[in-house]
Amino acid sequence: MTHTQAWQELKEHHRQISTKHMRDLFSQDPQRFERLSLSFEDLLFDYSKNRITDHTLRLLCALAGQCGLEDKIGRMFAGERINCTEQRPALHVALRNRSSRPIHVDGEDIMPRVHAVLDQMRAFVDKVHSGAWRGFTGEPICDVVNIGIGGSDLGPRMAVQALTPYHKPGIKVHFVSNIDPADLADTLAVLRPETTIFLIASKTFGTQETLANAHGARDWFLQAAGETKHVARHFVALSTNRERVRDFGIDPANMFPFWDWVGGRYSLWSAIGLSIALAAGMDRFEELLAGGHAMDEHFRSAPLDRNLPVVMGLLGIWYVNFFGAATQAIVPYAQHLQRLPAYLQQADMESNGKATTCDGRAVCCDTGPVVWGEPGTNGQHAFFQLLHQGTRLIPVDFLVPMHSHYAPGEHHNILLANCLAQCEALMRGRTDAEARIQMEAQGLDQADISRLAPHRVFPGNRPSNLLMFDKLTPRILGILIALYEHKIYVQGTLWGINSFDQWGVELGKQLAGTILTELQEDGALSEHDASTAGLIRHARRNL
Amino acid sequence: MTHTQAWQELKEHHRQISTKHMRDLFSQDPQRFERLSLSFEDLLFDYSKNRITDHTLRLLCALAGQCGLEDKIGRMFAGERINCTEQRPALHVALRNRSSRPIHVDGEDIMPRVHAVLDQMRAFVDKVHSGAWRGFTGEPICDVVNIGIGGSDLGPRMAVQALTPYHKPGIKVHFVSNIDPADLADTLAVLRPETTIFLIASKTFGTQETLANAHGARDWFLQAAGETKHVARHFVALSTNRERVRDFGIDPANMFPFWDWVGGRYSLWSAIGLSIALAAGMDRFEELLAGGHAMDEHFRSAPLDRNLPVVMGLLGIWYVNFFGAATQAIVPYAQHLQRLPAYLQQADMESNGKATTCDGRAVCCDTGPVVWGEPGTNGQHAFFQLLHQGTRLIPVDFLVPMHSHYAPGEHHNILLANCLAQCEALMRGRTDAEARIQMEAQGLDQADISRLAPHRVFPGNRPSNLLMFDKLTPRILGILIALYEHKIYVQGTLWGINSFDQWGVELGKQLAGTILTELQEDGALSEHDASTAGLIRHARRNL
Repeated sequence: MTHTQAWQELKEHHRQISTKHMRDLFSQDPQRFERLSLSFEDLLFDYSKNRITDHTLRLLCALAGQCGLEDKIGRMFAGERINCTEQRPALHVALRNRSSRPIHVDGEDIMPRVHAVLDQMRAFVDKVHSGAWRGFTGEPICDVVNIGIGGSDLGPRMAVQALTPYHKPGIKVHFVSNIDPADLADTLAVLRPETTIFLIASKTFGTQETLANAHGARDWFLQAAGETKHVARHFVALSTNRERVRDFGIDPANMFPFWDWVGGRYSLWSAIGLSIALAAGMDRFEELLAGGHAMDEHFRSAPLDRNLPVVMGLLGIWYVNFFGAATQAIVPYAQHLQRLPAYLQQADMESNGKATTCDGRAVCCDTGPVVWGEPGTNGQHAFFQLLHQGTRLIPVDFLVPMHSHYAPGEHHNILLANCLAQCEALMRGRTDAEARIQMEAQGLDQADISRLAPHRVFPGNRPSNLLMFDKLTPRILGILIALYEHKIYVQGTLWGINSFDQWGVELGKQLAGTILTELQEDGALSEHDASTAGLIRHARRNL
Repeated sequence: MTHTQAWQELKEHHRQISTKHMRDLFSQDPQRFERLSLSFEDLLFDYSKNRITDHTLRLLCALAGQCGLEDKIGRMFAGERINCTEQRPALHVALRNRSSRPIHVDGEDIMPRVHAVLDQMRAFVDKVHSGAWRGFTGEPICDVVNIGIGGSDLGPRMAVQALTPYHKPGIKVHFVSNIDPADLADTLAVLRPETTIFLIASKTFGTQETLANAHGARDWFLQAAGETKHVARHFVALSTNRERVRDFGIDPANMFPFWDWVGGRYSLWSAIGLSIALAAGMDRFEELLAGGHAMDEHFRSAPLDRNLPVVMGLLGIWYVNFFGAATQAIVPYAQHLQRLPAYLQQADMESNGKATTCDGRAVCCDTGPVVWGEPGTNGQHAFFQLLHQGTRLIPVDFLVPMHSHYAPGEHHNILLANCLAQCEALMRGRTDAEARIQMEAQGLDQADISRLAPHRVFPGNRPSNLLMFDKLTPRILGILIALYEHKIYVQGTLWGINSFDQWGVELGKQLAGTILTELQEDGALSEHDASTAGLIRHARRNL
């Protein structure tokens, strides 16, 4: 990417634009909002409050073109092995392919298998909801516990909360992820084994945390149920490892499979989404898929400069690689999107937190930023101080629905007004003169005004995107998640890295195995640095 | 700070040390762990896995000395007006002052007032726990809802979750913060008005979100209770505004006050902590205070180079100002510390996210970083990829208890082993040769080994602190929170900024008022940029 002509032109262009204030860009161009915003269904994507001009966008699209982005998008949908290090396709788009187009892997159309699992999920969900599926004492199911970690947890957890207004009455979905025994203990404390089913979500059925928690849940269950034959009525698996699933006591007929072309962090659209379907019903789950699919169709067909994920990805590159932004804030003005930042943290940082290109060389520019955030308005009372007056440039994505599922009226309007006001404040800031005028109007004396003015100045010129939509529905949730997934792919493609592997999780796992043995046994330690060795000894003395 | 001699020496020293790998620093110095770690009670603070030598630490302490840190610490404890812009002391240390030393503000010893509120809290908590306090139908109280935002929410919420094993049976504490009506609606959905009390936490009793939610709760309550006289049995205030509290229907005898020398983000030690005391009991709350006080005594008396908050603060400055680190990750290996990162996000970013010095000049170096994180081991399956193999240097604080309150044995040992392994992995990394040897041992062929090796290399040399302690008790929680508070003060002092104001929250609030009116009324808009105006019009058409 850094060797393209567009990159050189962007560097030069950045030198010119970095001194310009967005206030001036707005005042010079009355059509800026109309031109620098896009619509997709009821989603309005306003990117006019970025430090760009039309020329910036042209250059960024040229950069994408020179990096072969359109070809790379086509390769993803065609099922090519774009996960180069693991030599697999990345086909989360197949999971939500609502068209009649086949998608081939190794010559086989995978769509019938996708549909078969969706049918299997629907049959199971309907049985649980209708009360046809019963626990070992004959009672219907009231509680569902998803045991999984990483992609088998963050996506479903986020989506289940997002769809709270659609929850089926009588069913409550819980999530356990952490190996910390507190996590399982807190969850079990409010449950009855007779009316609870557990979804064990692990592709290999070998993830350490998930298996430990699954066995903990099984022990707890068997204390009440007694006989192991009852396990099959209370445990199902979201997995591909039929043998291990059966050994655990789960009926293989209740194993919901997925495939090696589904990455963990892209898996909520697969059987991993079973908890979403149990919470909100299979129809809602399919609306979510349809939303994702609608965004897929847009992504594969819209021209680069009208393509939401492309424009969003390019803006991110503009800040990371030209302005040196190290982070990206995600601030949903929607309490039910509380876990969206944590979800996108994995989606983005595990995909693009890499420094080696697909062909094995060191990247020559920064890659994925730190993704973080909390819902608004909460964040305003926490970290917004730094967004407004800190020393760092932090691009912010604001997301806000125009309508609430709850009481219409003022509360939600206050929420919306705050969201729009924060975008405005970040962009325009407050000058020294404005601060002084305001304090004069408040009747402060000149000494106080002079003393306080520097503290009440806001530099502004801080960029944000706004994603405004009608209401938080399953469909828009699907659209938003797919938008971010594709944004991440756009960026990974331009950086030349593989967004679909995660070799960086290996080393810690390997070292943990060694240390666990050493914590639990006496005797000499293997080779460690003095700190790790000292800590193991300290822990041994205290365990 | 940048004009000190120590700063110049640190710049030169950084040039030398930035090329060194911690692996080599460890292998050259067998005593590195012993020397670069500190103990405080049962807390072990290991900072040996940082990119420092003894010389670095000497220079950093010299920097602190040349910035007058010791004097500034003394000024805080002496009650001087260190919150210079608002001309107030910052005396959260008085709230947990368990010594018999008086603390004076304007010549008055404030300790009797602090103790009087603690007595008032104890009496109330005891009444609720004993069942002497009853709801309007005569039933005892089962549920407590804290309605507050920012500092009136994040601290108590974090601490209540942290102290889960100490919760009183029969009482459950809930938190509502967001103006989004979903937040209150979700909480009320599981409550009975007859057995619920609400704590309205707002210093001014005028915070927009808190008042809106308080009125929403009051309406919900009155639908069941009918008569407004019952409000006083179900609503209490954590506030200083007696008049507004009374107007709301709360008995002023049930107003728990605090003072203008308590900043919102430092207020969990004050009456704002009432929800903590209701959850875990007043004795536990006082153990929390005692932990904070113990750290205070350490902070004010330990020499700089053995002083935990000082060393931690200086290490942060080393990374922010010399290595250009833009963020600080907080990763507690304890599910009950899940909200610690969000708590510290406010504590740190609202305190030090500033660019103007106390005397009104622009800072000439970067200040507070973005603070973010999620619990381990969850984070390992999410963003750790980027920590290990991304292009950015991200200092990490790991926190881990050696013992669990829950089932002893393997689960918790796995948690601990993973924590130690991540510190080790970040520090040592994995070389190309090590990656190849490992793949050879796994029997991969040479072509695959060569193809994969660059992806399986970890650069290492990534810094972390480890805070390891026995068990997550109220006392250690107090110690840890006070440690971070003082760390933040150390950094603010060196940067020359005021860590106790928050002017940066003003502008957005002001603009939101204007926009709210415009959303709800027709007619011409006031002066906005084209984007804000366009968005308001779009929303108006759809509301």
